[in-house]
Amino acid sequence: MGNHIYKKIELIGASPNSSDEAVQNAIAKASQSLRNLRWFEVVETRGQIEEGRVAHWQVTIKVGFTLEA
Amino acid sequence: MGNHIYKKIELIGASPNSSDEAVQNAIAKASQSLRNLRWFEVVETRGQIEEGRVAHWQVTIKVGFTLEA
Amino acid sequence: MGNHIYKKIELIGASPNSSDEAVQNAIAKASQSLRNLRWFEVVETRGQIEEGRVAHWQVTIKVGFTLEA
Amino acid sequence: MGNHIYKKIELIGASPNSSDEAVQNAIAKASQSLRNLRWFEVVETRGQIEEGRVAHWQVTIKVGFTLEA
Amino acid sequence: MGNHIYKKIELIGASPNSSDEAVQNAIAKASQSLRNLRWFEVVETRGQIEEGRVAHWQVTIKVGFTLEA
Amino acid sequence: MGNHIYKKIELIGASPNSSDEAVQNAIAKASQSLRNLRWFEVVETRGQIEEGRVAHWQVTIKVGFTLEA
Amino acid sequence: MGNHIYKKIELIGASPNSSDEAVQNAIAKASQSLRNLRWFEVVETRGQIEEGRVAHWQVTIKVGFTLEA
Amino acid sequence: MGNHIYKKIELIGASPNSSDEAVQNAIAKASQSLRNLRWFEVVETRGQIEEGRVAHWQVTIKVGFTLEA
Amino acid sequence: MGNHIYKKIELIGASPNSSDEAVQNAIAKASQSLRNLRWFEVVETRGQIEEGRVAHWQVTIKVGFTLEA
Amino acid sequence: MGNHIYKKIELIGASPNSSDEAVQNAIAKASQSLRNLRWFEVVETRGQIEEGRVAHWQVTIKVGFTLEA
Amino acid sequence: MGNHIYKKIELIGASPNSSDEAVQNAIAKASQSLRNLRWFEVVETRGQIEEGRVAHWQVTIKVGFTLEA
Amino acid sequence: MGNHIYKKIELIGASPNSSDEAVQNAIAKASQSLRNLRWFEVVETRGQIEEGRVAHWQVTIKVGFTLEA
Repeated sequence: MGNHIYKKIELIGASPNSSDEAVQNAIAKASQSLRNLRWFEVVETRGQIEEGRVAHWQVTIKVGFTLEA
Repeated sequence: MGNHIYKKIELIGASPNSSDEAVQNAIAKASQSLRNLRWFEVVETRGQIEEGRVAHWQVTIKVGFTLEA
Repeated sequence: MGNHIYKKIELIGASPNSSDEAVQNAIAKASQSLRNLRWFEVVETRGQIEEGRVAHWQVTIKVGFTLEA
Repeated sequence: MGNHIYKKIELIGASPNSSDEAVQNAIAKASQSLRNLRWFEVVETRGQIEEGRVAHWQVTIKVGFTLEA
Repeated sequence: MGNHIYKKIELIGASPNSSDEAVQNAIAKASQSLRNLRWFEVVETRGQIEEGRVAHWQVTIKVGFTLEA
Repeated sequence: MGNHIYKKIELIGASPNSSDEAVQNAIAKASQSLRNLRWFEVVETRGQIEEGRVAHWQVTIKVGFTLEA
Repeated sequence: MGNHIYKKIELIGASPNSSDEAVQNAIAKASQSLRNLRWFEVVETRGQIEEGRVAHWQVTIKVGFTLEA
Repeated sequence: MGNHIYKKIELIGASPNSSDEAVQNAIAKASQSLRNLRWFEVVETRGQIEEGRVAHWQVTIKVGFTLEA
Repeated sequence: MGNHIYKKIELIGASPNSSDEAVQNAIAKASQSLRNLRWFEVVETRGQIEEGRVAHWQVTIKVGFTLEA
Repeated sequence: MGNHIYKKIELIGASPNSSDEAVQNAIAKASQSLRNLRWFEVVETRGQIEEGRVAHWQVTIKVGFTLEA
Repeated sequence: MGNHIYKKIELIGASPNSSDEAVQNAIAKASQSLRNLRWFEVVETRGQIEEGRVAHWQVTIKVGFTLEA
Repeated sequence: MGNHIYKKIELIGASPNSSDEAVQNAIAKASQSLRNLRWFEVVETRGQIEEGRVAHWQVTIKVGFTLEA
C-alpha cells in the first residue's frame, strides 16, 4: 500500500457453509470484473436462519483495489 | 437475501417535502441505471434551511442490489 | 421517568406507507402484550425495494416500559 | 458552505404528528433568536408513548448557522 | 422480511471449536423455545484463553424472529 | 463464562442517591424474576434534574444470565 | 418531556472526590445562569492523576433545558 | 484542566489553504467573543471541491473554555 | 447542495509529503473520470512508516458528486 | 499536556465496593511500575453479579503517561 | 474475572487458512512472553487478496491478562 | 502486511507547528525504542489553545510493528 490511489467498494457475500467462505465468495465475484484487488475489511456478519440453523452466512465486506495510472 | 452476492452503493436523495420522499427520490434515480435493487438503509438525515424552514430534506442511504451471475 | 425500573426491548415495525407508520405499527403490536409502554428510540431505518420504489419501510426501535413493583 | 465560520447547536423538537414536523418545530423555534440558520443534521429520533400510540415525536437535531463577520 | 413485525433478542453462544459453531449453538438453543427465527447479526466475538489457546469462542448475536399475528 | 449460552436484557435502574445505586437497583429488580444473573455492562448514564440538582440517576445496563440446559 | 423544544449544551464538571460529584458540580454551575434544566447525559468520564491517585474526576455531560415560549 | 467547570461549543472553520488553517480560523473567530479558550478536539474534516481541487477545507471542532466563577 | 441526487464513493489517496496532499491526490485522480465532484469527507488517516518516519500518508475519503438528470 | 509525547495503556480495575474505587485500584496498580501517570479515560464499566448484587465492579480505563526524554 | 487487575494489549494475527486460525496465531505468539492470558476480543477482521482469493486473514484482537500482585 | 504477527500501541504526539508534525514526533519517539515500526492510524486530533491560537497540536495515533519470530 505505497504511493497508489485506491478505491473501496462494499459487497455482501453469502455461503451456506461458513462466514469465511462468504467472504471468499464475495471476493471471487468481484475479481471477475475488477483487477488489482488488494485487501478486504469485514463490516458486518449476519445470516438467515431456517429450521433452527444458519441457512446462509452473509458477510458485508469492503474491498480495496488499485486505480490504474 | 439468500445465496446471492450483493453490492451496496451510497446515495443522497433530496426533497422539498419530506424525509421519506428524499429516500424515494434517491431510489427512483438509482433504478434508472441499476436493475435488481433490493433494499436500502438510512445512513444520515439532514437538510438545508431557508427562511426558518426546511428547504430541502437530504437523506443519505445505502442501496443494495444483486450482482448478476 | 422518575424512580422506576424500566426494561427496553428491540422491535422492527413495517409499513408500506411511511417510516413513521412503521414505528406506530411496532408500538401497536407491542402494546397488545405489554402494559406501561413509555417511550421509544429509533435504532435503524431501512426497507425493501420493489420495482424501483420502497415496498416496505422497516424501522428498528427500542421500546421502554415500566417494570411493575 | 464556502469560506465562512459556522456554529452548531443541539436542539430537540417535538410534535404530536410526525418526526418531520418535530424537526420543523425545532428549526422554527431556533429561527426566532438566530439569524443565518443554514442546515440541520438529525442526531436521534425518539418519542413518548401513551395508550399504545406515539404521543410526541422528539427529534434531536444539530443546527448550523453562520457566525457573522 | 416483508410487512411483519419482528423482535430481536441478544444471545451469547459458546463453542470450544470455532466462532461459527458458537453462533450455531446460540441459534440452536434459541430455537428450542422460539418459533419463527429469521436472521441473526454478530455483535461481538470474544473468547476465553487457557494454556495459550482459545478454550471457548463466545459470540454475541442478535436474533430476529416474527411476532405472530 | 465457559461453555454456556447466555441471554442479555436491557434495563434502566434509578436512584436518588448515586449512579452505582441505580445499577444495584436494576439488578435487584431483575433478580426477582431471573435466576443465574452473571454480569452487567453499563450502556448509558443519565438523570433528571430538579432545582439545580440530580433528582434521579438513571443508568441503562445490559444484564447477562445463563440459559438453563 | 412532552411537547416542548429543548436545547442541550455540553459541560465538563470536576471534583476531587467522586465522578458523581463532578456531575453535580457541572449542574450546579449551569443552574446559576440557566433556568429549566431538565436532564443530563454522561458523555465521557476521565480525570487527572497525581501521585498515583485520581486528583480530579472530570465528567463531560450534556444538559437539556426547556426553551421558553 | 484542574478543578474548573468547562463548556464545549461546536464550530466549523474554513480555509482555502489547509485543514490546520481551518482549525486556526475557527479558533480565531471564537476568541473574538470568548475568553479562556483552553483546548479543541477535531470532530470531522471535510471540504468543497471545485474544478478537481479542494476549494475550501472545512473542519468541525469542539472548543472548550473555562466558565468563570 | 439543493434538490439534486448525489452519489458518494470511497477512495484512498496517498502522498509522501502531507495528509492534506493525500486528500488532494485522491480528488485529482477521481476528477479524471468523474464530473461534478462537489465535496469530500475524511474517513480515516493512516500511513506507512519507513526508517522511523512517515513514508506515505494514506487518507481515506468519501467523495460526493452530482448524478446528472 | 504541553509539548510532550504520551503513551496510553488499557487496564481493568476491580472493586467490591464502587465503580470509582475500581478506577482507583487500576491506577494504584499502574503506579507501582510506571512513573509520570497523567490522566485516565473510562472506556467501559461492567461487573460480576452474585446473589442478586454486584460482587465486583470492573472498569476498563486508558491511562496516559509521559514518555521521558 | 474477580477482584484482579488486568491489562489489555492489541495484536494482529495472520493466517493463510482462516480467520479463527489468525486469532489462534496471535494468542500463541502472545503466550510466548506473557503469562496469565485470560480472554480476547476481536476488534477487526481484514485480509490481503492475491489472485482473486484471500491470501492472508488478518484479525486484530485485544488480549487481556492478569497483572500479578 | 503478510503472514506476520503485529502489535499496536497508542501514542500521543505533540507539535507547536502542525498536526502532521505531531504525528511525526510520536513516530520518531517510538522508533527510539522499537524496531520494525510499520504503520500508524490517527485516532484523535486535538490541541491546546493559548492567546487565541493553537499552542500545541496533539494527535493520538496507534502504531503497528512486527513482533519478531
